[in-house]
Amino acid sequence: MNQNAVVLLSGGLDSTTVLAIAQDKGFNIHALSFDYGQRNRFELERASAIAEHYKVAQHKTVTIDLRAFGGSSLTSETPVEKNRSMDEIGRGIPATYVPVRNTLFLSYALAWAETLPAYDLFIGVNAVDTSGYPDCRPEFIRAFESLARLATKMGTEENREISVHAPLQELRKADIITRGMSLGVDYAMTNTCYDPDDTGVACGTCDACILRQKGFSEAGYEDPIAYQASRA
Amino acid sequence: MNQNAVVLLSGGLDSTTVLAIAQDKGFNIHALSFDYGQRNRFELERASAIAEHYKVAQHKTVTIDLRAFGGSSLTSETPVEKNRSMDEIGRGIPATYVPVRNTLFLSYALAWAETLPAYDLFIGVNAVDTSGYPDCRPEFIRAFESLARLATKMGTEENREISVHAPLQELRKADIITRGMSLGVDYAMTNTCYDPDDTGVACGTCDACILRQKGFSEAGYEDPIAYQASRA
Repeated sequence: MNQNAVVLLSGGLDSTTVLAIAQDKGFNIHALSFDYGQRNRFELERASAIAEHYKVAQHKTVTIDLRAFGGSSLTSETPVEKNRSMDEIGRGIPATYVPVRNTLFLSYALAWAETLPAYDLFIGVNAVDTSGYPDCRPEFIRAFESLARLATKMGTEENREISVHAPLQELRKADIITRGMSLGVDYAMTNTCYDPDDTGVACGTCDACILRQKGFSEAGYEDPIAYQASRA
Repeated sequence: MNQNAVVLLSGGLDSTTVLAIAQDKGFNIHALSFDYGQRNRFELERASAIAEHYKVAQHKTVTIDLRAFGGSSLTSETPVEKNRSMDEIGRGIPATYVPVRNTLFLSYALAWAETLPAYDLFIGVNAVDTSGYPDCRPEFIRAFESLARLATKMGTEENREISVHAPLQELRKADIITRGMSLGVDYAMTNTCYDPDDTGVACGTCDACILRQKGFSEAGYEDPIAYQASRA
């Protein structure tokens, strides 16, 4: 029997690529999504469709209550920023930062891992995120591995290592797309936009859309999804 | 203005003592409770009453979905163990272990702390818990402090230390009660039992009741709550 892995799956380009990578490595996939009151409700539908497409062993969606604490334009009524330049996108911590989101996501993944058991967690953090979000950096991932070992029965009584795989850590968007294409990922299934319209069509002008379009362009592939608009 | 602290408040003896200690240190208290599907629904009522009694700045109860993963008699239909000897209670990881519970609780506390901001978190882990639960040990608490710093804006952009205070860490139940009595804690407000009856009266025979009764007895105080039964 293949070893279990818990894969964080948002339904976006990055996490779908990570799922394909984990499956390619031979893991038995347990996909975990979160309903955290994100304004983009299409993400969760895409996550379910992707989990089904990849015939994962299990897919769970856990509801978590991040709006209770406020602090991010992704979960509040603050407008998402549009048409920012690459310089603006790269500078500082963006308004879409959800406090401690990856800490919470990995903690839930670890809770599931402890019951399966699974000694391998997968997360889609990458070089673009790393520049803006503190909980996407390699030192954060390593700190979580240390914590995971101390926090669990499998890490203490069974004395097992727990690995947090971040296979996109050093990759830029174009590299991620190239890697995914080589594994046959169908990016038409994925949603990236922070602010799609009522039918799920991507805006084309939020930071996430801009980075996605730039990634496809640099990788030399055509982005298979439609957009409402291009950058002004 | 006093500095903010986030205090994890279950409504039990330990966390109520911790709240009293944090208030005695002069912190502006933000109390955080969790509805994690615990079979003891009275805990949350007690937590609210205690938060009100201490006139905390804010009290939030966050719903978290631990039953999704199973793995504990506190959140499942497996019966709570009764009438165990002190030897049995002290041996190994108990069935009431909720996977990764403190990791999740502290992660939520950190998310709230990041938005306040608060640089101090308080948790009621103690020497009794430490013997059975991996995520109650001092090395776990230290690992979480390291993670907290790397996971947040306040730890990275502002370069602030984040402290996880576990003031009961080295204390046994009798010491905790003695400390709380010196701060005027009214233990009649607190609930400890894993399995109270329909009106909230403690069973008297689960591990938690046995440890509480022993603690009051050793501290030389009378336990102000009623019990259905004493140990067989």
